[in-house]
Amino acid sequence: MQRTLIIDALNSEAAQPTIALCGWIRTRRDAKDFSFVEINDGSCLTNMQCIVDTGTPAHAGLGDAATGAAVRVTGELVPSPGKGQKWEVRAQHVEVYGLADPESFPLQKKRHSDEFLRTIAHLRPRTNKYGAMFRIRSEAGFAVHDFFRGRRFSLVHTPVLTGADCEGAGEMFRVTTLEPGAKDLGEDFFSRQCNLTVSGQLEAEALATGLGRVYSFGPTFRAENSNTPRHAAEFWMIEPEMAFADLEDLMELGEGLTRHVVDHVLTHCENDVNLFDSFVDKGLRERLQHMLAAPFARVSYTEAVEILQKCGKSFTFPVSFGTDLQTEHERYLAEEHFKKPVIVYDYPKDIKAFYMRQNEDGKTVAAMDMLVPRIGELIGGSQREERLHRLEARIREMGQNPEDYWWYLDLRRFGTVPHAGFGLGFERLLMMLTGITNIRDVIPFPRTPGNLEF
Amino acid sequence: MQRTLIIDALNSEAAQPTIALCGWIRTRRDAKDFSFVEINDGSCLTNMQCIVDTGTPAHAGLGDAATGAAVRVTGELVPSPGKGQKWEVRAQHVEVYGLADPESFPLQKKRHSDEFLRTIAHLRPRTNKYGAMFRIRSEAGFAVHDFFRGRRFSLVHTPVLTGADCEGAGEMFRVTTLEPGAKDLGEDFFSRQCNLTVSGQLEAEALATGLGRVYSFGPTFRAENSNTPRHAAEFWMIEPEMAFADLEDLMELGEGLTRHVVDHVLTHCENDVNLFDSFVDKGLRERLQHMLAAPFARVSYTEAVEILQKCGKSFTFPVSFGTDLQTEHERYLAEEHFKKPVIVYDYPKDIKAFYMRQNEDGKTVAAMDMLVPRIGELIGGSQREERLHRLEARIREMGQNPEDYWWYLDLRRFGTVPHAGFGLGFERLLMMLTGITNIRDVIPFPRTPGNLEF
Repeated sequence: MQRTLIIDALNSEAAQPTIALCGWIRTRRDAKDFSFVEINDGSCLTNMQCIVDTGTPAHAGLGDAATGAAVRVTGELVPSPGKGQKWEVRAQHVEVYGLADPESFPLQKKRHSDEFLRTIAHLRPRTNKYGAMFRIRSEAGFAVHDFFRGRRFSLVHTPVLTGADCEGAGEMFRVTTLEPGAKDLGEDFFSRQCNLTVSGQLEAEALATGLGRVYSFGPTFRAENSNTPRHAAEFWMIEPEMAFADLEDLMELGEGLTRHVVDHVLTHCENDVNLFDSFVDKGLRERLQHMLAAPFARVSYTEAVEILQKCGKSFTFPVSFGTDLQTEHERYLAEEHFKKPVIVYDYPKDIKAFYMRQNEDGKTVAAMDMLVPRIGELIGGSQREERLHRLEARIREMGQNPEDYWWYLDLRRFGTVPHAGFGLGFERLLMMLTGITNIRDVIPFPRTPGNLEF
Repeated sequence: MQRTLIIDALNSEAAQPTIALCGWIRTRRDAKDFSFVEINDGSCLTNMQCIVDTGTPAHAGLGDAATGAAVRVTGELVPSPGKGQKWEVRAQHVEVYGLADPESFPLQKKRHSDEFLRTIAHLRPRTNKYGAMFRIRSEAGFAVHDFFRGRRFSLVHTPVLTGADCEGAGEMFRVTTLEPGAKDLGEDFFSRQCNLTVSGQLEAEALATGLGRVYSFGPTFRAENSNTPRHAAEFWMIEPEMAFADLEDLMELGEGLTRHVVDHVLTHCENDVNLFDSFVDKGLRERLQHMLAAPFARVSYTEAVEILQKCGKSFTFPVSFGTDLQTEHERYLAEEHFKKPVIVYDYPKDIKAFYMRQNEDGKTVAAMDMLVPRIGELIGGSQREERLHRLEARIREMGQNPEDYWWYLDLRRFGTVPHAGFGLGFERLLMMLTGITNIRDVIPFPRTPGNLEF
């Protein structure tokens, strides 16, 4: 008979004379007259409790299957007398697909450390915590697509392989088909140096100047040799670009996206969020709800610097106009001063990228960062410099050659428009949504220096 | 005032005294008393026609802006007396953001070849054809997410960077942070060889054996040095994996996904599909509708070979049991014999991968390919070998070392389950949906040997 997912069985309107469920055994307790077996199939956090009476064919079918074994249980769906679950299954038939030897199966019914679970990343999706994590990851991803489509953005796939080596080349991965040791780039696949992208922005701008509103959602890469809980060599970025839009529109977009994803996850992942609220980050749910309760704060960089200078707190890094905000400053603003997400805008031009639009004051650019409690920077973006001569001059000021940007400058040469975009690190968003503090634990198979297993 | 997207203006229920539109000029015709200006903002295929009366401030604002210029038009939305459009705008104010010098702007009002447009891939989204293409790409992408979420699959991001070098290593790109010429892998970022993924399948299997049903949708890479209209070095793949599922479930999933995306695109991209039906591939719409009209055909490999042997057609490659089907055979089956998509299943084990589940006949594996008219193979998948000893034996038969697959074999060691999955090349799907015959023209910035521009 057709199998039912546990989430659907748990949401059943009525008892059912026969139902078939599949899953992995999470716990088994043997009493004299029956065994309690809880199974989980990944469709939700909650297990289905199955009662298998001793001496029945079902009990014989169950055999000595214990934690980790994969089973198919057919039985009657009946109201559960126990607490905490509405339904349970009285097993009529049990089939074991695969046992899990208790001596060697690494996941036992106890708390395992995150460090240990990273060494068995192929099995950790079977734990409550990582199952919840990856379901939230999936729903947050869907919410991103849903949000942008609702605003008529087109999803675009910007390339991962890129010839751009102008910006921060030291932190890029090189891609090659040459044997190790060979160095004649003329013989290489692309007949020139190829890198893994650090951002799809420039290509997204090209697409936005035809399609109007676009967003990319894909992997990006940084070859930073730093082992921190906030850095991974491979992570996913969301990068919208809007033609005919200014910084104001961009701030509204960033706030709208963040609110939409938070709201979607609170609505669609209630049990999974509760797990993190209970066991990982007390107060998580309330903090997320608080984010939705009022508009985000907005403050210019100049005002932000004044707040930080006057706050009486001693920071490791001193702050004055022209310095980049550090995570300690970003977190102070969001967590202590505003006590909610805050968008800081109009940063000094000297600490920002060449493509950001210069303001009339000659000192600042139309950039914005969204800072959120616990995380710091979640979003970084700007209105883009659409004036050809200003952009060319800025490229030269940075000691680069405008010819390397021929096609990017074409976008300003032909029908240039005010436009704006940002980048949002998807893993940072997930850390905010779950309270998880190590980026390695929101990525199924994380890549960090020296770590390439699985 | 707040700008309106052209698609929303075109769908307006009523005339409006003032409306603001932005866009790029597609055509301009000057008459004695007024200028006709058609603008497009990428939100849809259709332009908005604007009437700018000679001698008005609006006409002065328009100046000599022509094809390619970016403008903002404010005016009255009124019923259009002309054919083919319901509304037009009588301009009250025109602002030009950016001109496009007619002498140097490469996109003029004429038909450009696809080959030429590839050399200006940063501008081609401004043409009707590529605008339509990328809107279909976006909607098809959304339909994929929508379909899987509706069936309770979790979206997973499998890694792009991989240490796997067991399968077809010759066609993989290598990733490194070493300088060209250096070869001490111990000094490399991951202290070992790193490649770009050719498939997320093995990782997706690990996730499916915790989450139950998962799919990945991400970039994959092949370093094949072949310049054909069907191969790109970087393309996007959709790879679902289902625990507790067999080949039958997999065939149903592949057919369901294909039908869902076709139906979604026909419904949501009507004008864009009509463009391809009229100018690129006559009969496209009817062919897509025909796909929805009846169930897809299903035939075993053995039967398919018999059909091909008896059909009386002379193929370049002869067919007999044990040979791989070539594109000519696949297209004959789908286009001429069945005249619709056909799923071929139970292929000889010797031409298929080690992880496919062996059938009891000892000769075949539970593999399936979905073949569609014009394209050939759209989907390739299989039930996976879940029996530990059979899988280990098969790895050894292929001359490989089971220890290299330690974590993949763990999935069979602990709670193994019948499971199945497939890969669908997103660009092939787009070629099917548009009639475009060169893969370079369904990717915003395609990567092929020697081509890494933009």
